[in-house]
Amino acid sequence: MTIHDKFSRLGTDNAPGQEVRQKPGGLEAMMRGGRLEGRPVDFSHGDVDAFAPTPGSFEVFSEGVATGGCQAYTEYRGALTIRQELAERLTTFTGAPVDGEEGMIITPGSQGALFLAVASTVTRGDKVAIVQPDYFANRKLVEFLEGEMLPVRLHYERGEGRAGLDLDQLEDAFRAGAKVFLFSNPNNPVGVVYSREEIEAIAALASRYGATVIVDQLYARLVYSDVAYTHLRAGRIEAQNVITIMGPSKTESLSGYRLGVAFGSREVIARMEKLQAIVSLRAGGYSQAVLRTWFNEPEGWMAQRIRYHEAIRNDLLKVFRAGDGIRVRTTEAGSYVFPSLPALSVSGPDFVRILRLQSGVIVTPGTEFSPFSGNCVRLNFSQDHAAAVAASERIVALVERYRA
Amino acid sequence: MTIHDKFSRLGTDNAPGQEVRQKPGGLEAMMRGGRLEGRPVDFSHGDVDAFAPTPGSFEVFSEGVATGGCQAYTEYRGALTIRQELAERLTTFTGAPVDGEEGMIITPGSQGALFLAVASTVTRGDKVAIVQPDYFANRKLVEFLEGEMLPVRLHYERGEGRAGLDLDQLEDAFRAGAKVFLFSNPNNPVGVVYSREEIEAIAALASRYGATVIVDQLYARLVYSDVAYTHLRAGRIEAQNVITIMGPSKTESLSGYRLGVAFGSREVIARMEKLQAIVSLRAGGYSQAVLRTWFNEPEGWMAQRIRYHEAIRNDLLKVFRAGDGIRVRTTEAGSYVFPSLPALSVSGPDFVRILRLQSGVIVTPGTEFSPFSGNCVRLNFSQDHAAAVAASERIVALVERYRA
Repeated sequence: MTIHDKFSRLGTDNAPGQEVRQKPGGLEAMMRGGRLEGRPVDFSHGDVDAFAPTPGSFEVFSEGVATGGCQAYTEYRGALTIRQELAERLTTFTGAPVDGEEGMIITPGSQGALFLAVASTVTRGDKVAIVQPDYFANRKLVEFLEGEMLPVRLHYERGEGRAGLDLDQLEDAFRAGAKVFLFSNPNNPVGVVYSREEIEAIAALASRYGATVIVDQLYARLVYSDVAYTHLRAGRIEAQNVITIMGPSKTESLSGYRLGVAFGSREVIARMEKLQAIVSLRAGGYSQAVLRTWFNEPEGWMAQRIRYHEAIRNDLLKVFRAGDGIRVRTTEAGSYVFPSLPALSVSGPDFVRILRLQSGVIVTPGTEFSPFSGNCVRLNFSQDHAAAVAASERIVALVERYRA
Repeated sequence: MTIHDKFSRLGTDNAPGQEVRQKPGGLEAMMRGGRLEGRPVDFSHGDVDAFAPTPGSFEVFSEGVATGGCQAYTEYRGALTIRQELAERLTTFTGAPVDGEEGMIITPGSQGALFLAVASTVTRGDKVAIVQPDYFANRKLVEFLEGEMLPVRLHYERGEGRAGLDLDQLEDAFRAGAKVFLFSNPNNPVGVVYSREEIEAIAALASRYGATVIVDQLYARLVYSDVAYTHLRAGRIEAQNVITIMGPSKTESLSGYRLGVAFGSREVIARMEKLQAIVSLRAGGYSQAVLRTWFNEPEGWMAQRIRYHEAIRNDLLKVFRAGDGIRVRTTEAGSYVFPSLPALSVSGPDFVRILRLQSGVIVTPGTEFSPFSGNCVRLNFSQDHAAAVAASERIVALVERYRA
């Protein structure tokens, strides 16, 4: 494969946060009616102004700067004392032992952890099972590494109680030789949580076929009322076959510090460190200090954050469900909703651009997440509550206006 | 190639900063004499406590945090206003236009820029010309991408006035099909600067053979008295064939913020952004703000920093040259010295470990930089002046003790 072919498959034009690089050419001819006024909302990511970073995070960063050299330069896998502190808290959170010394790496963002984990387990020609829909970078990582993607459908629209993973298709993928299964739980973009039965089935299948599972649990702390969350690593699966990825990011509004962690298989973590040495050396030294605040927030702070998000979720679900032909599954964790829209007179990606131009609302097109999601849009509702509701009403109004 | 093979070639055991992970096993039997006391010095990287970060850098970071969302989330290639500011200053510094909008990307450290630049130009089977000795990650990047390395010797020991690149070997590499040439100027680990004639010859050869040149100019600001520095990108070479990498790092003691920039070829920069989207998303948003201080330091600050480093360099050269059989070329830029040691009774890597255990001095073994440099060690002398001199004296004393 030439370098041109390799990069022509790696599009970012519709990726969240990149909208500013789009040129509006050609849309005018399709547009109907005038602008809907209202406070602009960028649903492509959470609004750290609406939800402020963890109290004390900036102070801990400042102490990191004041500490100087030993904080600026750490082992490639991150400062040992910080890894050890985290290991203890993540053991409690996930319900299975975390080895801070040999079984954990701190990375520049959870995206950094995801890249390193996949690049440390997948090479050219390797088969990888990927959920559809799932986080848009998963597919791209496999393509960049010249692996072969074996899709596994998530039938999330079939209803609550389980995420809807097609377990037969997952077994087919393992049977066809998939050596890695990569998925997010809660699922991004749908916001559903895998049931205990689904997680147990994944563990059993991965063990039977000797596959490595990389589970992106970025939103595993932001779980809503009456939802049970099951940690894959705490189940019946060999510890060396699981890598769990988390990070203080959108839930804690700490994305600006670019921090992620991966933990689990010592062998894979050792490879990830070797690779980090040539990809980015290490997560920012001073930023690493911010991890001291993680899973260490003031009493009640996280519970309140969950309550606020649940209230926004409830209102957004009402707005979308009032729209004729709009369907949306209830978000169980994280801050995404993924409504599917009725047939429109313009394509999904064009509607997304029209939304930006006519209503000041930025969403991410469903095509980023699966080939079957062209009629969906993803919203990160970690936003100012009133602004998010008003912006969702403008989406519904424009759906009405552009209905086919 | 299996994933095991791929990673077995990516060693980091002797990489700078990783010494803490080494186990001392087996060394006791070789050791002679007792410990040499003195303040420990870690020459594997600069000491940001001895040389403090740029004045105002922390304040600008803090303003970045206070700015909130629009600083935390930027385009993948970095905040536009910051890129535009930088483009102007880098145009002045390098002597050729920099396009902040389409021809620049901000990365997590200059290591991040290097990874993205190589991964955006080299794919499996591509031939890449690599200087020996040169920065240790260069070779590893080519190996990780399954490219083929064509070595080009740097005969730095032949004397001053030119770096000593073997231009015939470089042409041989291009003739054999090398499509990329990757090198650092000033050279890391030797600290030599390529002469105008050498840079012109590189530009002419790359143009003749249509190759892309990636030049790592990380230390191009820390140039000592009476040394002329020539920017490749300002010479007779097609702009779309050059990527220049810099960053506010060791020179400015800003490594803790993990910032790098790459600029030049719009096509390569566009690919680098696509790749950054799946490797790390973006350089830390708040950290990007620190770039506002770069090439924007208080009057006289950089000149003073250069003077201090030159004074340390002069003293270290004296110490090493007084050692029997130790040879060292004069550092022309940057903060590395790369002395070659006489024959010892222990291997190079073992001597490096003995240095750490018996004298509290950490250096990087020459084998990290080329297969011909087993008798050399690299020191980053951006350290407390007196401590660096005393530690170098301990190195010379241990060379004497372990002489073959």
